[in-house]
Amino acid sequence: MTEFGYQLLATDKAARRGRFATAHGPIETPCFMPVGTAATVKAMTMDMVRSTGAQIVLGNTYHLMLRPGAERVGRLGGLHEFMRWPGPILTDSGGFQVMSLAERRKITERGVTFSSHIDGARHDLTPERSIEIQHLLDATITMQLDECLKLPAPRREMERAMELSLRWAARSKEAFTAREGYGLFGIVQGGIDPELRRRSAEGLQEIGFEGYAVGGLAVGEPQAEMFATLDATCPFLPGDRPRYLMGVGKPSDLVGAVLRGIDMFDCVMPTRSGRTGQAFTRRGTVNLRNARHADDPRPLDETSDCPAARDYSRAYLHHLVKSGEILASILLTWNNLWYYQQLMREMGVAIEEGRAEAFAAAFAEEQALGDIPPR
Amino acid sequence: MTEFGYQLLATDKAARRGRFATAHGPIETPCFMPVGTAATVKAMTMDMVRSTGAQIVLGNTYHLMLRPGAERVGRLGGLHEFMRWPGPILTDSGGFQVMSLAERRKITERGVTFSSHIDGARHDLTPERSIEIQHLLDATITMQLDECLKLPAPRREMERAMELSLRWAARSKEAFTAREGYGLFGIVQGGIDPELRRRSAEGLQEIGFEGYAVGGLAVGEPQAEMFATLDATCPFLPGDRPRYLMGVGKPSDLVGAVLRGIDMFDCVMPTRSGRTGQAFTRRGTVNLRNARHADDPRPLDETSDCPAARDYSRAYLHHLVKSGEILASILLTWNNLWYYQQLMREMGVAIEEGRAEAFAAAFAEEQALGDIPPR
Repeated sequence: MTEFGYQLLATDKAARRGRFATAHGPIETPCFMPVGTAATVKAMTMDMVRSTGAQIVLGNTYHLMLRPGAERVGRLGGLHEFMRWPGPILTDSGGFQVMSLAERRKITERGVTFSSHIDGARHDLTPERSIEIQHLLDATITMQLDECLKLPAPRREMERAMELSLRWAARSKEAFTAREGYGLFGIVQGGIDPELRRRSAEGLQEIGFEGYAVGGLAVGEPQAEMFATLDATCPFLPGDRPRYLMGVGKPSDLVGAVLRGIDMFDCVMPTRSGRTGQAFTRRGTVNLRNARHADDPRPLDETSDCPAARDYSRAYLHHLVKSGEILASILLTWNNLWYYQQLMREMGVAIEEGRAEAFAAAFAEEQALGDIPPR
Repeated sequence: MTEFGYQLLATDKAARRGRFATAHGPIETPCFMPVGTAATVKAMTMDMVRSTGAQIVLGNTYHLMLRPGAERVGRLGGLHEFMRWPGPILTDSGGFQVMSLAERRKITERGVTFSSHIDGARHDLTPERSIEIQHLLDATITMQLDECLKLPAPRREMERAMELSLRWAARSKEAFTAREGYGLFGIVQGGIDPELRRRSAEGLQEIGFEGYAVGGLAVGEPQAEMFATLDATCPFLPGDRPRYLMGVGKPSDLVGAVLRGIDMFDCVMPTRSGRTGQAFTRRGTVNLRNARHADDPRPLDETSDCPAARDYSRAYLHHLVKSGEILASILLTWNNLWYYQQLMREMGVAIEEGRAEAFAAAFAEEQALGDIPPR
């Protein structure tokens, strides 16, 4: 078995500051992974992504298998070469987006069949095929195929999906080709039921993975339920492996989840919001479309080191958003990814200094202030 | 009268290699000015524009007067500060786009009234107001208001518009506030009629400008007619002032116009084409949407120093274009602006070395080769 050699550098109650090595470079945790859906972090060059401090990005198996196709990416040297990102890449299994984007889905014990949302073509995704695709993509971190339910769901359904996901986890492990510095993550399922989550976490550890993800959250449940589920799940995850909370989330979700022992995150929120005029700042989200910014010469956040937050007036950003200019998407996405990375860095330092909870409280207080008053 | 102190560094027959100083920095000619329509060169950060070697960018008075408004940009410190481009900026007079974009236009001796294409509001653009707007924008180079006809047009119409433009030139000069390192350019009109062009050029020199533009070309006439008009116009322009061919053009237009004595160009072609999957290369234009690129690991142009042309596979660029990704627009616009700047630099060196015509012949030969063969 290959291992990432996850090192726990510091802990503060349940919160963890760690580091692990991969074939494509080190990853410091806690960390946020920008989403590079179709082999591009939308509206960013990879130099910009790197400038935010991001060490690892995510690719979506569902999108890439449909276009340009996994075999093609494989022939072209893998996803690192294709998108010119030499650093670590995590790919999801494709399962989540099959559920949310594809048409005419059919789930069986064997896997899932579906129609492409692009051209309607039928596709087949089994645990084995998902692993094969991720191998072709040359993913540094491969995710098992799982079934992710929408919440709320009946307990019986959650149990069935969790147990199916465990059997798919075993088949994924079997199909995965172990390579030095590469790893496979299992995914804990079980909805918001503590007992199901514990059984899922224990079942995955019997199979054995290089890391463990918590799936099936951030699918519509209140933040308190998500946090309660993490409280019920993290204690049953091994301390010497990275832990990844999938598809999460808002800045306050990240801070609360780090306090509960999560190391890794991904979410489309900073990138998607950047394309709709929303900026994340330490004083909450700012809607640049709002007319209050039209004559405001002040930057988005004068304390930020991000050029997008520091060097341009709100008036200019407002103008770009109102005019539908591509540069609006570029600058706001840049700001948002920078903010997320900075939040993770600051959280890491706070853990090292034993003040994670104080940091979280100060974070919440500053967010609650809201944006600077209009001039 | 302020002067830019245009220095003629070298000539090769009619072709000129020059340099002039402005309040916002030097400009080496021949030069191409990327179009920054609404205070942004579309799909580019200003760092990217700078990386291509561009020294001056263009802003559109028509777009900026409507949104965000000239007075607003003025209050915010001018266009350099607004768009974070400390270098020289040339603004057009607004006249050309009033003719092509606005609704319910009415031209009188006084100026032009029109309805905004954004919200239908009535606006008034006189020579004096155009100069005032460009002053508010803090344009390094201000253009006189002129009337630009679509070609072909009857000679009588061309004569009328040329004479109106001369009277507007005098009023523009009167309205312009001379400042050290700033300048006003007059615009030669007269369609494709040599006699009208000569009269226009001579009339403008009687008024006196820091530079002279050739307007009313690249409006549908064949390249040969454009070149013939330049041959009939440039000899009547003063040798000690920069010459600007407005709205031109294709790479071959630029090369031919430099041979005929033009120093400056602007055109939306490299930026607009970059957003529709078209790449300019030394071997002609390449349509990245074409399926022949889907599996091609080769870069767009391995001899280019532009990261977009050199570091990414055609397969990746094809994928981005097909997927409608913003990064496609970013990378292809970057490539195209880089290509245009490089062409102007190489042309300048060829003039210094007395081989401008040989360069133009080699350029045409390489363009005619067409793209590299499919693998």
